[in-house]
Amino acid sequence: MTGPIPVVIDCDPGVDDAIALLLAFASPELDLRAVLTVAGNVDLPLVTENACKVRELAGRAEVPVFAGCPGPLIGPRMKGKYSGAGGLGGTLLPAPARGAEAAHAVDRLIALAREAAGEGRGLTLCTLGPLTNVALALRHSPDIASGIARIVMMGGAFGVGGNRSPTSEFNVLADPHAAEIVFGAGVPIVMAPLDLTFQALATPRRVAALRAMGGRITATAAELITFYDRNDPARYGEPGGPLHDPTVIGWVLRPDLFNSRPAHVGVELAGTRSYGQTVGDFFALTGRPPNAEVLARLDAEGFFALLWQRLAAL
Amino acid sequence: MTGPIPVVIDCDPGVDDAIALLLAFASPELDLRAVLTVAGNVDLPLVTENACKVRELAGRAEVPVFAGCPGPLIGPRMKGKYSGAGGLGGTLLPAPARGAEAAHAVDRLIALAREAAGEGRGLTLCTLGPLTNVALALRHSPDIASGIARIVMMGGAFGVGGNRSPTSEFNVLADPHAAEIVFGAGVPIVMAPLDLTFQALATPRRVAALRAMGGRITATAAELITFYDRNDPARYGEPGGPLHDPTVIGWVLRPDLFNSRPAHVGVELAGTRSYGQTVGDFFALTGRPPNAEVLARLDAEGFFALLWQRLAAL
Amino acid sequence: MTGPIPVVIDCDPGVDDAIALLLAFASPELDLRAVLTVAGNVDLPLVTENACKVRELAGRAEVPVFAGCPGPLIGPRMKGKYSGAGGLGGTLLPAPARGAEAAHAVDRLIALAREAAGEGRGLTLCTLGPLTNVALALRHSPDIASGIARIVMMGGAFGVGGNRSPTSEFNVLADPHAAEIVFGAGVPIVMAPLDLTFQALATPRRVAALRAMGGRITATAAELITFYDRNDPARYGEPGGPLHDPTVIGWVLRPDLFNSRPAHVGVELAGTRSYGQTVGDFFALTGRPPNAEVLARLDAEGFFALLWQRLAAL
Amino acid sequence: MTGPIPVVIDCDPGVDDAIALLLAFASPELDLRAVLTVAGNVDLPLVTENACKVRELAGRAEVPVFAGCPGPLIGPRMKGKYSGAGGLGGTLLPAPARGAEAAHAVDRLIALAREAAGEGRGLTLCTLGPLTNVALALRHSPDIASGIARIVMMGGAFGVGGNRSPTSEFNVLADPHAAEIVFGAGVPIVMAPLDLTFQALATPRRVAALRAMGGRITATAAELITFYDRNDPARYGEPGGPLHDPTVIGWVLRPDLFNSRPAHVGVELAGTRSYGQTVGDFFALTGRPPNAEVLARLDAEGFFALLWQRLAAL
Repeated sequence: MTGPIPVVIDCDPGVDDAIALLLAFASPELDLRAVLTVAGNVDLPLVTENACKVRELAGRAEVPVFAGCPGPLIGPRMKGKYSGAGGLGGTLLPAPARGAEAAHAVDRLIALAREAAGEGRGLTLCTLGPLTNVALALRHSPDIASGIARIVMMGGAFGVGGNRSPTSEFNVLADPHAAEIVFGAGVPIVMAPLDLTFQALATPRRVAALRAMGGRITATAAELITFYDRNDPARYGEPGGPLHDPTVIGWVLRPDLFNSRPAHVGVELAGTRSYGQTVGDFFALTGRPPNAEVLARLDAEGFFALLWQRLAAL
Repeated sequence: MTGPIPVVIDCDPGVDDAIALLLAFASPELDLRAVLTVAGNVDLPLVTENACKVRELAGRAEVPVFAGCPGPLIGPRMKGKYSGAGGLGGTLLPAPARGAEAAHAVDRLIALAREAAGEGRGLTLCTLGPLTNVALALRHSPDIASGIARIVMMGGAFGVGGNRSPTSEFNVLADPHAAEIVFGAGVPIVMAPLDLTFQALATPRRVAALRAMGGRITATAAELITFYDRNDPARYGEPGGPLHDPTVIGWVLRPDLFNSRPAHVGVELAGTRSYGQTVGDFFALTGRPPNAEVLARLDAEGFFALLWQRLAAL
Repeated sequence: MTGPIPVVIDCDPGVDDAIALLLAFASPELDLRAVLTVAGNVDLPLVTENACKVRELAGRAEVPVFAGCPGPLIGPRMKGKYSGAGGLGGTLLPAPARGAEAAHAVDRLIALAREAAGEGRGLTLCTLGPLTNVALALRHSPDIASGIARIVMMGGAFGVGGNRSPTSEFNVLADPHAAEIVFGAGVPIVMAPLDLTFQALATPRRVAALRAMGGRITATAAELITFYDRNDPARYGEPGGPLHDPTVIGWVLRPDLFNSRPAHVGVELAGTRSYGQTVGDFFALTGRPPNAEVLARLDAEGFFALLWQRLAAL
Repeated sequence: MTGPIPVVIDCDPGVDDAIALLLAFASPELDLRAVLTVAGNVDLPLVTENACKVRELAGRAEVPVFAGCPGPLIGPRMKGKYSGAGGLGGTLLPAPARGAEAAHAVDRLIALAREAAGEGRGLTLCTLGPLTNVALALRHSPDIASGIARIVMMGGAFGVGGNRSPTSEFNVLADPHAAEIVFGAGVPIVMAPLDLTFQALATPRRVAALRAMGGRITATAAELITFYDRNDPARYGEPGGPLHDPTVIGWVLRPDLFNSRPAHVGVELAGTRSYGQTVGDFFALTGRPPNAEVLARLDAEGFFALLWQRLAAL
């Protein structure tokens, strides 16, 4: 199998989605076939506009953007905690010249997975937001599972606890039924939970290093990250917010920067204290075979070196 | 608003679905635009073939059939209790000459609802099986709610209890999450629960009356009903199985044969003893406004007079 | 087995508890060994005082009263809907001269059950409120199950729905975990759910008949019932409130006035829409053997004839 | 406040309970007023006999033992994974000459708490098994909360996951409703979850050090620990089983060997994947105030030095 990796990104930008998109746009190893959007950090029209803004910042107008679902399968729409200023710092990026395509993200995902199956090489589907689009596609057309080589997912939390409830991470909690569908669909899953992404801290030292690098967009990227700032030193041990979503693209480019543990993972859909929790069986206590490879340790220095270098080269 | 009522039927035949389809095919008041199929009583290929068989028995080849989802949103596929012999009594009906269309039932439902919205008159969507197709369509394209005038649903149970668990009726229990999505979608719902359909008993006296009527298909219809026979006199009070699904079409044709009560209805998704139960608030105990009109009493004699007369006229 | 039936009543008066107590005090067939109280309609000190008031009205000072638990096993204390004026119409009854005994109701229930076991004849335990005391006793000393011939319980709801939520009746919802413990304890249970007690309507005609009967306390009893008035003709079909609790004593005295159906009954402890529901398996859908005899039909005329005659004779 | 700490231990021995009891018997800082037993690792008669065996090994016949509840509040009785050979290695310890007292553990706990309240100094209640006894006492007589200075509990699990299910620790999972009652009772709680106790590894090196110490019972204690052996180096990082329960007594004696974090803790009673999980809110995500001090880090060398020295001095 040679040539760039066929990739689709499903996202809800959001600053860390934006940085992840920039990393993907900047990486020649990836054949980025589409960017799909889903309601999450902010509402669907805004995440879609934000994806288009980032595409223009990257100068990659040929990559099509498709808008997907405006809310979760079941229950009320939950917004990101840091969804102010449109999710991308207001006017930091100009309004995009080109918008999204007319087709629905779910329909396009089904078509792209079938095309990839026909090529004999499945898609790498990177998910950076709630899993509504992916779940709908898998339930509408279960055959597409064979056209998806893997889902690399930012979502869930194990030992470190959640960020929106004591047990639950935003992307999963925002549509737990969709996540449960995805975990049960038989597609190989690589999971970047909070346990992993809390290691990708954009500390002041690291952001200063980015600013110092030169390049067309590094100043803007540094502004976005500064706007995003989610300092919680009591929790993370040092200042700086975690860049959750870029770890997903980082793994696709450089899996050697990560280690992982296999587990059976499912989502708690019935609990009153742990609703939306990803429950991982890492020690074969349930007898269920692993359905996910859970990323555990990140080489943070190596990861930021990669990320900043690619952003500087855009 | 004049002219026949634009109707789409989503079903999983099954004998009582077949009788419901025959009633619809036989009724000039209805503009039957499509028959959709969903896994339920039997697997998707079989319910689709069965729908085509019934269409040929009715001589209505111009009505297209579209296959939909092969299983529920979440959880294992549950089959009908009486799913033997392919769901339609084996070779009672010949193999169909024409099969289903290529398009997906969910896609076609979305298109038909938008067309109906454009005509200024919403669809009457009759659902006779699990609600997977309808839920996927509503979540994929929430705008179609405005193109559906009402959903007339066979499903759920209240005071009489369930048929697959003490609390739960098969169509809802087979995909409770889909049902919950439908109840929350903002589309007017008319609901025929077991409380209503247990009144539509195909007693021996009534089946004998059908056989005596003459007509091209009455003998076959009587055979189907005899095959279907779900006698449970301890529960129903007399011999004969309830013809659940035809009551839905019966209501569309002759709402005067029914009375109803408004209620807020939702589905229990978390209970360990009452999973899949439809919970109805008939006395405003929760403060939630009604979202369904629940059919309560059936004029059984009037209903069977209508049904037999239409079958005899086919 | 001859001689009066050894009876313990666990209650939370409340007017309908008070009428039930009066019926018990007035009935020579019963050897009423203790009245236990539990928080329910009103707080524990008030229900205990109310029980003492009713004892004095009945002139039965020799029957001891024991106070039990002030709240449910788990969750917040839920009060009765009609708990105004102390639960017994304020000053309709004078303050009692004698109060409750020092011992705890749970301890006394354990001792009484063991005494009854020693006599070779179990207690008939009548429960008119939440089941906290009974559950604690059964878990503290499981051996007492052999000293309880039966629990006759006002509680739960099936086809008619609940009175505090669409699915749940107050006595069970106020401590669903206690009820689940009781249903699982292996003691024979006779259950008077709302389906039964809604038939015991104190209509204006019936209350007028009581007033007309003469006797020392009939006027007071009629006042209490009038104060209690829970008219809901839309639900009950005619004016007048249901006298729930007296049906329990009525069954002990005259089981021929009732019919019943066996069922396995449990309590929904996990549901979000049906929390606290009694789920009954009347048609062997779960394979669990019956653990309760559920009272279904009441001869209301016979029941009120008995009740009024006994009250008049006090 | 001077003089030894008034202590009651509720336990289900089991080897690690036995070591904890020996540590308590050996410690003059503690005024050990009673040992209570509860079904857990093995059935109630066996845990009670085991407690008496350990008492005789310690030569502390004056400390009374009281048997409590034979099973959980709700649901089936769950046994320890390592409950073979009676829970204490069969005949390692001789049959005890003296048995338990006649009174019920729950009744005795209530009396002891009230006595302690009268002394102006609450009990330190150490719980080493399921919380059934404690929950029953608190619900029977809520006033005793004021007589319990603190509950020091071995139970629950947070980041490290469970030992009986992916989320749940045995003592809590064996009676989750009892644990929920205890967490909600308003008594200060110090919690030793698996996250803490996994640090108390009885490694071969440490057990060898115990054997080398001399003393009347060290050889027997080392045998017990060797029998107990729960090696899982893949999980713990080195060979040797965790001595869960002795950490509780260790904290009472030497809190300086531990650090801790405050949290609001509750138990998941409704989840299908996380039933029996202790859910801790360490970052104020729910707004609920802390109800427990959760032990986080153990000075393992200091802890084993204390434990071995005390066992050697018995």
